[in-house]
Amino acid sequence: MANEKFVSQIADIETDFPQWYTDVVVKTKLVDYGPVKGTMVIRPYGYAIWENIQKEMDARFKAAGVENAYFPLLIPMSFMTKEAEHVEGFAPEVAVVTHAGGAKLEEPLVIRPTSETIIGHMMGKWVESWRDLPLRMNQWCNVMRWEKTTRPFLRTSEFLWQEGHSVYATGEEAEQETLNMLHLYEEFAKNVLCMPVLIGRKTEKEKFAGAVATFGMEAMMHDGKSLQAGTTHYMGQNFAKAFGVQFTGVDGTLKYGYTMSYGVSTRLIGALIMTHGDARGLILPPPVAPIEVVIVPIAQKKEGVLEACNALADRLKKTGVRAKVDDSDNSPGWKFNEWEMKGVPVRIELGPRDIEAGKMTVFRRDTLEKQDSFTLENAEETVKALLSDICENMYERAKTRMQSRIVNASSLEELLSGVDGGNFVRAGWCGERACEDKVKEFAQATARVLDEKNDLPTCVCCGKKAKHTVFFARAY
Amino acid sequence: MANEKFVSQIADIETDFPQWYTDVVVKTKLVDYGPVKGTMVIRPYGYAIWENIQKEMDARFKAAGVENAYFPLLIPMSFMTKEAEHVEGFAPEVAVVTHAGGAKLEEPLVIRPTSETIIGHMMGKWVESWRDLPLRMNQWCNVMRWEKTTRPFLRTSEFLWQEGHSVYATGEEAEQETLNMLHLYEEFAKNVLCMPVLIGRKTEKEKFAGAVATFGMEAMMHDGKSLQAGTTHYMGQNFAKAFGVQFTGVDGTLKYGYTMSYGVSTRLIGALIMTHGDARGLILPPPVAPIEVVIVPIAQKKEGVLEACNALADRLKKTGVRAKVDDSDNSPGWKFNEWEMKGVPVRIELGPRDIEAGKMTVFRRDTLEKQDSFTLENAEETVKALLSDICENMYERAKTRMQSRIVNASSLEELLSGVDGGNFVRAGWCGERACEDKVKEFAQATARVLDEKNDLPTCVCCGKKAKHTVFFARAY
Repeated sequence: MANEKFVSQIADIETDFPQWYTDVVVKTKLVDYGPVKGTMVIRPYGYAIWENIQKEMDARFKAAGVENAYFPLLIPMSFMTKEAEHVEGFAPEVAVVTHAGGAKLEEPLVIRPTSETIIGHMMGKWVESWRDLPLRMNQWCNVMRWEKTTRPFLRTSEFLWQEGHSVYATGEEAEQETLNMLHLYEEFAKNVLCMPVLIGRKTEKEKFAGAVATFGMEAMMHDGKSLQAGTTHYMGQNFAKAFGVQFTGVDGTLKYGYTMSYGVSTRLIGALIMTHGDARGLILPPPVAPIEVVIVPIAQKKEGVLEACNALADRLKKTGVRAKVDDSDNSPGWKFNEWEMKGVPVRIELGPRDIEAGKMTVFRRDTLEKQDSFTLENAEETVKALLSDICENMYERAKTRMQSRIVNASSLEELLSGVDGGNFVRAGWCGERACEDKVKEFAQATARVLDEKNDLPTCVCCGKKAKHTVFFARAY
Repeated sequence: MANEKFVSQIADIETDFPQWYTDVVVKTKLVDYGPVKGTMVIRPYGYAIWENIQKEMDARFKAAGVENAYFPLLIPMSFMTKEAEHVEGFAPEVAVVTHAGGAKLEEPLVIRPTSETIIGHMMGKWVESWRDLPLRMNQWCNVMRWEKTTRPFLRTSEFLWQEGHSVYATGEEAEQETLNMLHLYEEFAKNVLCMPVLIGRKTEKEKFAGAVATFGMEAMMHDGKSLQAGTTHYMGQNFAKAFGVQFTGVDGTLKYGYTMSYGVSTRLIGALIMTHGDARGLILPPPVAPIEVVIVPIAQKKEGVLEACNALADRLKKTGVRAKVDDSDNSPGWKFNEWEMKGVPVRIELGPRDIEAGKMTVFRRDTLEKQDSFTLENAEETVKALLSDICENMYERAKTRMQSRIVNASSLEELLSGVDGGNFVRAGWCGERACEDKVKEFAQATARVLDEKNDLPTCVCCGKKAKHTVFFARAY
């Protein structure tokens, strides 16, 4: 990666956040635009983040007893129509294969926008008795949803994700798993992405097409807008009935199973960029940063400097830290800028005087603090402690920020002023779709999740008794 | 997975190998048929093998300095036609998306059958100067080739694979990388799949559509047929010219790069099944076996038996061995059959008498030997040594078998009789396509790879002076 061209000019994060985002994702080489409109190429620096996300998430699934599998990309069009709400929600977005192998197909095939239908079909084949339950599977794959307006990572016609699908004998178990996976996502967001989230149930309007209930985790982006970062869905018997997922119970009678599903996608990369980034560019959470520590040699042509840098990198790698020496022939200043823009959590500067004094200069990306009092001897402990502290600081900083930007509203005007100010707005809601629609029309804000705490007495829209307290926000 | 239904009847491996294969892959739950003709569902037991293959292969790529990325699934139809041989080879096999988002597309899009075109297009954007080279990338993804006759893992319309793509400043470097990756595959086949292979250059007829030269690794299946298990391709400047992959050299002039690519797929799972399997079913190589050691409790309801089994499994897991206790309520005999069919390399039987004596009974799947002289105390060392020995034995056994089934032929009749007998046949070849076609017509055998050793003087077909010694075989 020596001598890459890059331009450090990125738009101002405060005055033009959308352009800042585009500049950052392209100039740090996370992503590029594909030749087909709405598609993205995930470049090595971006894909390495996804690999770290996969590794951490997959370990959690395996620990929870979920097994990975792989289901076909192409789904018969007729499957989509078996669940009435599902087809209504997804049919307008699908890409359709009509020809293959030089001939027109008898039945058009859709590229999976999600796999409830085909997995339901297979589970219907596999499940026979209560002994086969629960059946809990996950797949890591690509999916496609034809979108009109696209942005890298946030909304692209093709994206990568995991989709977990389980079938249980009882609704209680399937509902419990829907909540368990929501909490798994929340823990992952906190400990791996250093990202605070709100979790909760979605309204009927915002739920997954075909679900009985959808739960989501929402994160606050730098501009105060919300990003849906993961969802879990309880399907009741909707898909089990559509695809004949039946089992013989302990009592010998035939029953339908209860299914649930859950997913997170490459959108998480967009989420962490817009949660943590600053005027200089990316700030990557250490657990997913492709490079956790970059070592920049000072006066690198002086005898012993590069050797000392490489030796330090080797020591750090041995303890599991992703370290890299930038031995390109760019100037130190250029390197500082580049790695700051690329969001590397820790930079170590090492020159002849440091080496002689047995010291190293350490810069942390989250606080922009530079310290030269660390000894080379204790580099491993120093770096480990620093990475852990950065993680905690990034989480706490984002959490404080989010919490300071949650306001209550008791009128539509207050709600509008709240979201205009870049806040999440808590407001009472009567539960009627008409009021939810009115909020959207009046304030361009949607119900993100229902708050567990139901303390606001009247509907922000109609003034009647509130059924729920809702987090409203503008959203990506 | 307790109490699964399974039927242990599988077809006879010697008299009906195709049916044996189908029985084994379906009944061991490696795979199932998808609803669209020619597609497969990779079930957890099969997918876990693929995950182990990916982990081992990916570590080798990363150690070699190759970076992972992700390129879009959909390729504009016009890309396919930019390289004349490429479109001729792949156009008849592609699946075509004509509609998306509820409308007809302006240009049809093909689902990638391989990604030279789209990656060539992106590399053309990224490569500007000699400083950007070499550029070495890999992606793990799904691809689609519409096939008329399909079999799980061996030939399916959709399959999973890795495809590596590199661009170099010189042809020599790109050719060298083509050979390096071929050798990486050979080492992987040996040490991870315990599978001997022949490697070598392919004939013009058998090469990749658009390549200057293709190299392959071929493995001998139980029935003596060959299976192409991996290929590497040197493209020269064919794709660089088609997609404008140009760079400014050290001398300041604009030049085209030289590209190469390489891939292995879920076909490797079919290869290892048909290399190692026996009358009882699968024999899985320890490095990729989802379960390396299954522990079967004897008299499992007796006090202390399950506890001892679980304690042993925990000890093994701590040393990195994938161990599982089968505590289902099936009989030990049933369990023995099931795990033998599923190919678990080592079975440990543990009952009250063993526990009292501090011993364990160990069965190895490759040789079907049972030994009761091992102490429980040294279980970790015993198992580690055993797994390593099984790996070596599986490789040596398959290698001896393959070597004993390589025969020379100096006439078409000899060649026919050789392949009829389930052999790889070495024969001289003049280099003319007509003779290669004649061999296929006469013996239903194809040129698998050219032998490095060129010792047979005359063409097996026309009797003229031979240019190459070729390995001919029937192939999957």
